[in-house]
Amino acid sequence: MAVLVVGSVALDSVRTPFGERREVLGGSATYFSVAASFFTPVKLVAVVGEDFADEHRRLLTERGIDLSGLQAAPGRTFRWKGEYGYDLNVARTLRTELNVFAGFRPSLPEHYRDCEYVFLANIDPDLQREVLEQVRSPRLVACDTMDFWIAGKRESLLRTIRRVDILLINDAEARQLSGESSLVRAAQTIRALGPKALVVKRGEYGAMLFSESSVFAAPAYPLEAPVDPTGAGDSFAGGFIGHLASARDLSEKAMRRAIIFGSVMASFDVEDFSLGRLVRLSREEIHERYRAFSNLTQFEAIPEDAS
Amino acid sequence: MAVLVVGSVALDSVRTPFGERREVLGGSATYFSVAASFFTPVKLVAVVGEDFADEHRRLLTERGIDLSGLQAAPGRTFRWKGEYGYDLNVARTLRTELNVFAGFRPSLPEHYRDCEYVFLANIDPDLQREVLEQVRSPRLVACDTMDFWIAGKRESLLRTIRRVDILLINDAEARQLSGESSLVRAAQTIRALGPKALVVKRGEYGAMLFSESSVFAAPAYPLEAPVDPTGAGDSFAGGFIGHLASARDLSEKAMRRAIIFGSVMASFDVEDFSLGRLVRLSREEIHERYRAFSNLTQFEAIPEDAS
Repeated sequence: MAVLVVGSVALDSVRTPFGERREVLGGSATYFSVAASFFTPVKLVAVVGEDFADEHRRLLTERGIDLSGLQAAPGRTFRWKGEYGYDLNVARTLRTELNVFAGFRPSLPEHYRDCEYVFLANIDPDLQREVLEQVRSPRLVACDTMDFWIAGKRESLLRTIRRVDILLINDAEARQLSGESSLVRAAQTIRALGPKALVVKRGEYGAMLFSESSVFAAPAYPLEAPVDPTGAGDSFAGGFIGHLASARDLSEKAMRRAIIFGSVMASFDVEDFSLGRLVRLSREEIHERYRAFSNLTQFEAIPEDAS
Repeated sequence: MAVLVVGSVALDSVRTPFGERREVLGGSATYFSVAASFFTPVKLVAVVGEDFADEHRRLLTERGIDLSGLQAAPGRTFRWKGEYGYDLNVARTLRTELNVFAGFRPSLPEHYRDCEYVFLANIDPDLQREVLEQVRSPRLVACDTMDFWIAGKRESLLRTIRRVDILLINDAEARQLSGESSLVRAAQTIRALGPKALVVKRGEYGAMLFSESSVFAAPAYPLEAPVDPTGAGDSFAGGFIGHLASARDLSEKAMRRAIIFGSVMASFDVEDFSLGRLVRLSREEIHERYRAFSNLTQFEAIPEDAS
């Protein structure tokens, strides 16, 4: 099943302790689309400016991503500039230029409107709902957000969240949204706002899934040489939703597998700047790393002579 | 097999967002001993002052802990005062009073010297070696330390570490000791200093085991209402070494089970102040939570129609 994603397509300037890149392809919808494209067809909704290079467009179409919902508007493409410290865990935003994103009104091509799987990447919650209203009968709606909207546009965000099946946010955001310091309680509070499940992204510490009946915790893949975490959360979401859409299965078991596929895609993303690693990826490498996650987490039941 | 532990026995004054306790029983050797006592006999080496209450001594002997190596010295017992913020992840030390610990020279009773399992809790690395030299033929030596010794007594610490089989430290300490930001590389560097295995404790994010052939990652147990993380690392070590000593097995499989038993004991420790929860614990509860860890981490292999 195809996945529809709305979010940003950006030009990123990034500095990490391992190097620097200027005006490289980035954005939440971009990372999501490329990661999800290994699992299922993707239809992208976003806006770019006149300065958006053909090579970027080509990179996306070569991954089979449908760009008919990618508007081209007069002006400059959205830009983000940030840097990471030694432990790569926290991004420091140095500058955000909304540019064409400032006037963005999403309009879905007719053939997008029957998509059953929808990912609302981190954008203004008003825009997230505008997209939802154009989708006829979504089977699964997943959504990301950030501290900026939780603090500054809470009512609108809550209206979006009410219509969402799975919310994917980081642990600080889960605490901020719920007002609870315990993630277990945060998940209870957030699930009472609408979502059937909460996925908490914890960067180098992995991810957790809080669903109706259980909690699942997955570590992040321990990388010898992480390079740039930009896009890891959206790559995670791409693997996660991509697997669910492809498997057409929303059971607890499928959700857990999807968390691992999400973690796999995030781990590859971090291995290079921009989409450098994701575009070189093979299905066999994805499966190999999935198996590595099994080995990373496996332990025996309590032995007979237990102590 | 009995485990020998050297470390601190302390009176702690602790404030967390969930309450406050003054001059309650604490200390690395205390938490370790009580946690390990659910798995195997424990022999404790430490020093207390004249003010150390009989009830504390009784609490330990009722858990079967051998106190013949607990010296009583003129003066006051070691005291620690600290507090935790909202997320409970980082302790802020407000005051440390070494008191009788300042002049402590460990001297092992004769019947301690044949112990084959030894845990050197976080104390001066000179003292850690003094203990080691009194043990005849240890089969497994595990060791904890902290930033204070890594920065201030590095040469002595490295001499201790050379004789250690398993080092248990937190992630910041692993990075500080190795000079590497990637934990995978930190583990390689640290294992080259002597230890066959490195256990990295990550608080609410769980623990990792880096051994010769593999990496294992376990989450922390998601608690609805954590209360006080004091002693969690030492309770972890108690469950970890306690299981290894009890199983008399140092295989990779046993080490992974031990990480889970350590995580179980740490999770219980956090549920109350001081040793409040640990002393009320039953073997059945420990096994039940071990099984909960299986459920928390389980996921399927890649399905046949994988995507």
